[in-house]
Amino acid sequence: MNNKLLGVFLVSALVGFGFSTVASAAGPKPEDAARYRQSIYTVIGWNFKPIGAMVKGEVPFDAAAVARHAQYIELMSKAALEGFPKGSGPDAVKNTEAKPEIWTNWDKFETAMNDFEGEAAKLAEVAKGGDEAAIKAQFGKTAETCKACHKEFRED
Amino acid sequence: MNNKLLGVFLVSALVGFGFSTVASAAGPKPEDAARYRQSIYTVIGWNFKPIGAMVKGEVPFDAAAVARHAQYIELMSKAALEGFPKGSGPDAVKNTEAKPEIWTNWDKFETAMNDFEGEAAKLAEVAKGGDEAAIKAQFGKTAETCKACHKEFRED
Repeated sequence: MNNKLLGVFLVSALVGFGFSTVASAAGPKPEDAARYRQSIYTVIGWNFKPIGAMVKGEVPFDAAAVARHAQYIELMSKAALEGFPKGSGPDAVKNTEAKPEIWTNWDKFETAMNDFEGEAAKLAEVAKGGDEAAIKAQFGKTAETCKACHKEFRED
Repeated sequence: MNNKLLGVFLVSALVGFGFSTVASAAGPKPEDAARYRQSIYTVIGWNFKPIGAMVKGEVPFDAAAVARHAQYIELMSKAALEGFPKGSGPDAVKNTEAKPEIWTNWDKFETAMNDFEGEAAKLAEVAKGGDEAAIKAQFGKTAETCKACHKEFRED
């Protein structure tokens, strides 16, 4: 495939994902960034939920499933911060729960996100070991970082 | 933290993600599945786009960036299929571009998704090597699997 053809292909494929192909060198549009970060959190929630159901005893504990879900939580935690570029707050984007404090207090926000990333990495590590009690404890710690950041930086 | 307290925590955290905590053992609600799969494709697109910009020469080639993006595309490709449980098609969910053919022709859909997963895994592998020409070629092959599946199984 030559480059021109590939270009046409790409435009087609990318438009299919709902992204503008214009100004890709200039960084994402605010609404694309918001959609991205919301998607990251949706994928986190999707993987968080079944572990939570196991921790609460609603479904049988399944160490292999926990390890898989925890891997996704870990990877998403590393990908979340890039979804908050400057200028993608509520002034620029409708349908965002991100508070302006994220950008006016960026260092604190970044620290809170790093806390989440750290606990999520530990959860993935503990999950590989398969120790139910340790997994439950580390899941609780990870959930606390979610809650702490939401309380300060997300609209209810 | 005792289990009851943790339960309260979880409900709070999960509601924060917009998921019902009811019936977690019964599988996801159709609208949650649709939101999840759309999120997976949003994250794929977010990571696809910068590689595309490099392939088109809009931004300088950056092998390390490609490797990181390709890793996310690979992982998302493995996570997409679970976003299409039975009963989560257009009959049950508004705002979905998923065609009924996904479920009436599941084997073909699964094959198309496996094709994407296979090419995405190769892209991640090739990306680690840093060979620009090989990456561009494999990126094109991966994009072809996107397009093939969209053509048959996604509303325009």
